[in-house]
Amino acid sequence: MSKNDSEYLNNLRHSCAHLLAKAVKDLWPGTHNAIGPAIENGFYQDFDFGDRKISDADLPEIEEKMRIILKTWEHFDYKEVTLKDAKKLFSDNPYKLELAEEFAKGGKKLLTNNPGNFLDLCKMTHVENPKKEMQHFKLLKLAGAYWRGNEKNKMLTRIYGTCFPAKEELDKYLWQQEEAKKRDHKKLGKELSLFIFSNSVGPGLPLFMPKGMIIRRVIENYLVKLKESYGHHFVWTPHIARSELYKQSKHWQKYEAMMPPLKLEDEEYTLKPMNCPHHFQIYLANPRSYRDLPLRLAENTTVYRYEKSGVINGLFRVRSVTQDDSHWFIPHNLIPSEIDHAIKLTKQIYEDFGLSKFHARISIRDKKNPDKYLGELKVWESAEKELAKAVSEKNIPYSLGEGEAAFYGPKIDFMVEDSLGREWQLTTIQLDFNQPENFDLTYTDEKGEKKRPAVLHIAILGSIERFLGILIEHYGGAFPTWLAPVQAIVLPISDKHKDYAHRIYNQLTEVNLRIEEDNRNETLGSKIRTAELQKIPYVIIVGDKEIKESTISTRRRHEKQDLGQMRIKNFIFMIQKAIDNKTNN
Amino acid sequence: MSKNDSEYLNNLRHSCAHLLAKAVKDLWPGTHNAIGPAIENGFYQDFDFGDRKISDADLPEIEEKMRIILKTWEHFDYKEVTLKDAKKLFSDNPYKLELAEEFAKGGKKLLTNNPGNFLDLCKMTHVENPKKEMQHFKLLKLAGAYWRGNEKNKMLTRIYGTCFPAKEELDKYLWQQEEAKKRDHKKLGKELSLFIFSNSVGPGLPLFMPKGMIIRRVIENYLVKLKESYGHHFVWTPHIARSELYKQSKHWQKYEAMMPPLKLEDEEYTLKPMNCPHHFQIYLANPRSYRDLPLRLAENTTVYRYEKSGVINGLFRVRSVTQDDSHWFIPHNLIPSEIDHAIKLTKQIYEDFGLSKFHARISIRDKKNPDKYLGELKVWESAEKELAKAVSEKNIPYSLGEGEAAFYGPKIDFMVEDSLGREWQLTTIQLDFNQPENFDLTYTDEKGEKKRPAVLHIAILGSIERFLGILIEHYGGAFPTWLAPVQAIVLPISDKHKDYAHRIYNQLTEVNLRIEEDNRNETLGSKIRTAELQKIPYVIIVGDKEIKESTISTRRRHEKQDLGQMRIKNFIFMIQKAIDNKTNN
Repeated sequence: MSKNDSEYLNNLRHSCAHLLAKAVKDLWPGTHNAIGPAIENGFYQDFDFGDRKISDADLPEIEEKMRIILKTWEHFDYKEVTLKDAKKLFSDNPYKLELAEEFAKGGKKLLTNNPGNFLDLCKMTHVENPKKEMQHFKLLKLAGAYWRGNEKNKMLTRIYGTCFPAKEELDKYLWQQEEAKKRDHKKLGKELSLFIFSNSVGPGLPLFMPKGMIIRRVIENYLVKLKESYGHHFVWTPHIARSELYKQSKHWQKYEAMMPPLKLEDEEYTLKPMNCPHHFQIYLANPRSYRDLPLRLAENTTVYRYEKSGVINGLFRVRSVTQDDSHWFIPHNLIPSEIDHAIKLTKQIYEDFGLSKFHARISIRDKKNPDKYLGELKVWESAEKELAKAVSEKNIPYSLGEGEAAFYGPKIDFMVEDSLGREWQLTTIQLDFNQPENFDLTYTDEKGEKKRPAVLHIAILGSIERFLGILIEHYGGAFPTWLAPVQAIVLPISDKHKDYAHRIYNQLTEVNLRIEEDNRNETLGSKIRTAELQKIPYVIIVGDKEIKESTISTRRRHEKQDLGQMRIKNFIFMIQKAIDNKTNN
Repeated sequence: MSKNDSEYLNNLRHSCAHLLAKAVKDLWPGTHNAIGPAIENGFYQDFDFGDRKISDADLPEIEEKMRIILKTWEHFDYKEVTLKDAKKLFSDNPYKLELAEEFAKGGKKLLTNNPGNFLDLCKMTHVENPKKEMQHFKLLKLAGAYWRGNEKNKMLTRIYGTCFPAKEELDKYLWQQEEAKKRDHKKLGKELSLFIFSNSVGPGLPLFMPKGMIIRRVIENYLVKLKESYGHHFVWTPHIARSELYKQSKHWQKYEAMMPPLKLEDEEYTLKPMNCPHHFQIYLANPRSYRDLPLRLAENTTVYRYEKSGVINGLFRVRSVTQDDSHWFIPHNLIPSEIDHAIKLTKQIYEDFGLSKFHARISIRDKKNPDKYLGELKVWESAEKELAKAVSEKNIPYSLGEGEAAFYGPKIDFMVEDSLGREWQLTTIQLDFNQPENFDLTYTDEKGEKKRPAVLHIAILGSIERFLGILIEHYGGAFPTWLAPVQAIVLPISDKHKDYAHRIYNQLTEVNLRIEEDNRNETLGSKIRTAELQKIPYVIIVGDKEIKESTISTRRRHEKQDLGQMRIKNFIFMIQKAIDNKTNN
């Protein structure tokens, strides 16, 4: 069994919950342990402490005790017992008694385990060599939890922890958690005035403040320019359409996140959940010939999706989703080269955003649920093969995701790793032979015959909102110069330097740099601190010396580095290079 | 009475309907004339021709007859008659009889008029000197119309015409009509592949094709850049919000074109009809100080308005309205200078689009309907004065539009004249003291006291869709180079020139020009014709001579002018100048 296997990780973490139970019961005899499962990234163990109050401050003591006990845990001894035996063995623990009754009623074997002087009742699997394997754990926090999640039951105390096979893995995870907290995009979004949510507007509907809008615009303009160079034609389509359109596309029947409709002059309209049926209308507006294909229609536009208020989360999960969407209409023989073209574009964009680590997942049908999908088996099989071939030919590592396909076709999804090592699904490239049937899309081939194109649905960044959330956390709010809402700030040392500072501000603004000046009556130190909190890439300081020598003094955020005095034209050259190279320096 | 007075025009045109009736009755005795009112830009007269078939081909003969009769019309003689007399005088005309009965029943005087051997029954006013004043008329077209607009009645024949005080006015109007037909933006929009409507998407919801989208984008990018240089900060807000937001802004109660709501998790949401309440949320997101003001928030975004399907008209009246919206938050003492700033921006934008003729209308309250408006009389009066003062100080001609104000404040609207001399209302600058109360907008002044800002609501182009419709007709589809979707097309004379043509295409594309190449196997003449129909500003022709001499031959659409051979760098210099100057050459 591989140590990274998720089954192994679950056993390891669940075993650690036993260790936690033993430590607590040793420290505070009379405490009852309830359940202790593995969860994503860790485990928890529930306790009934009776009247004792326990807090986060007790965690180090418990950890200490766990380490002492662990030294004695050689291996888990198992023994099958009868219900009667179990009731006797765990007679003081009402939770174990309830579980024993339930296991027996369900016809399950009753197993005790004892890794070293700690008899417990449990139906799970544990690690083979606790003493060796379980060393790298950490308790994380405390919370309240009702027994069996039912609020009519007693409130228990839940202790969360995690455990990894290796120290480096544990350290990385703890650092990741700590960093992620500091970089939380909701917190930084507020501190850097990037976006807000308003209760009057509604949940999941972010409003972008001027600085957030600059980043959005830089990203969107970048996408337009790059995608045009990859042969896209941009279009614009409205945000609502007759519900009939989505019935024809089958979104109405198959897509779960449709917004509810509204009624206009006895007709139903719906906010668009997707752009494909709209782009099909544009395709259908003219007769198409093989000479027009591949036709790559693109749009940066907002679709609306009904996400339940419970799952809405900052920019990561919103109801107004701005997509960098595109639909490519292609003759069947060009499918491989067009998928190549799409992957090339994807890689280029990742590179420009400094996302160097990524892999692919080929999402195929859930073969047990054929009703979820449109179209014929044969067509699906060939499409699934095309995608796997394209990815493997590019030497991109990939996995298969059964049941993850869209209802109209299989897809390649790209997962990128951010600077904290967390994985995010970004790009989707979906191959579709079914909607062209649905909308009767055709073109005339070289021989004058009517043919049906295939459609690639491609969104590289996916949701601009979500991508912006990821970028904020990836960069910790310190955007590279090309994306930074304010690229440099000019700080006069005192009042008498304000005129000169303003001239510098004007000169830099004129060459289309995004500049601010800080004319407040504050000390230079305080102004530098504000600029650093705002994570502005370059700070320009001007005082007597700079005025006398017609220079500026510059300080770069990224390396907390003073670059000293320089001529303004040299500064422009340097910052322009950083912008062109999409770096900080 | 001024000759341009609309009352005078109505009398003139209505008098002309009498003349038309007389001519038709002389030509075809037994024909009955029914009603003949003045309408916008002309008049009509309904006839019952009995079994006679009449067509547009008969109009010249009728006009001829009208001219002969007009020479004898000195003035209208009026005489009051009893119902009994009227019934006797018009006993052969069932329509006049019905009208006479009705006038009498309504207690109105029955008046006959006789401008020269043509006794008619009519309650309207006519011109004093028909022979002299009515000379400049023209019959326009025929249509069917039910008597009194009721489809249960007999179908009559309606003849449309117009009449102007002066020959030049008539000629201008006829030319305008002829040109407007050729320039119809719905026709050109299709021919130039700019936009489409799709029945599946719905009426009033245009979809922009790639070429239309390029024009939209050029306009939007131009606005962003210019408005930023005028101190705007761009934001982004979603297209829906909780209906509560519009109840707070009172749009829900006062604005007629709200879209119907949709229900989400037991809450009502509505498509935004306006952006102001959204921008107020952004204003409210931070505490504001006098140092932050004026704060000018701008957004190019689509609002949704319920226009009845009957009034929807191409791009002129749509349901998806993309506004170049902005909201300026200003201390009261800066109102005059900020209105100046707004007018300066407006004039700059008109100039760049070649709209040199414009005037203003100050829209004030309907004093008889105080319930239609928010806020106090005193505040309204001072606001109305501010606007009039700002406009008159700039020497912009203006009129007062009573009852045209928004419900929250008075406004300046700007009307521009297009190349056909037609007037369009574009810009609106609205001064608002009421929404700041409504949303409790405040800032801290120099003394640390809480103050309320005023808000200017400003949309310069208004609706981008409508403006694009106006521009298409203004330019007759021949957009100046900076706006043209395709700025130049490269035409190889024959197959062997294709490689060279493609190199030219690449060189021009690399310097960000919007270029096409036409590689079809067609004659050069046919390719030039296609390019001219597409109204592409520059046509580049390459053949043996150009290849030999490393040049291109260029032809400019605007003057149908051959510019001869030139080096490509000279062409780039020339076209770049046209783009920078926003002209054709």
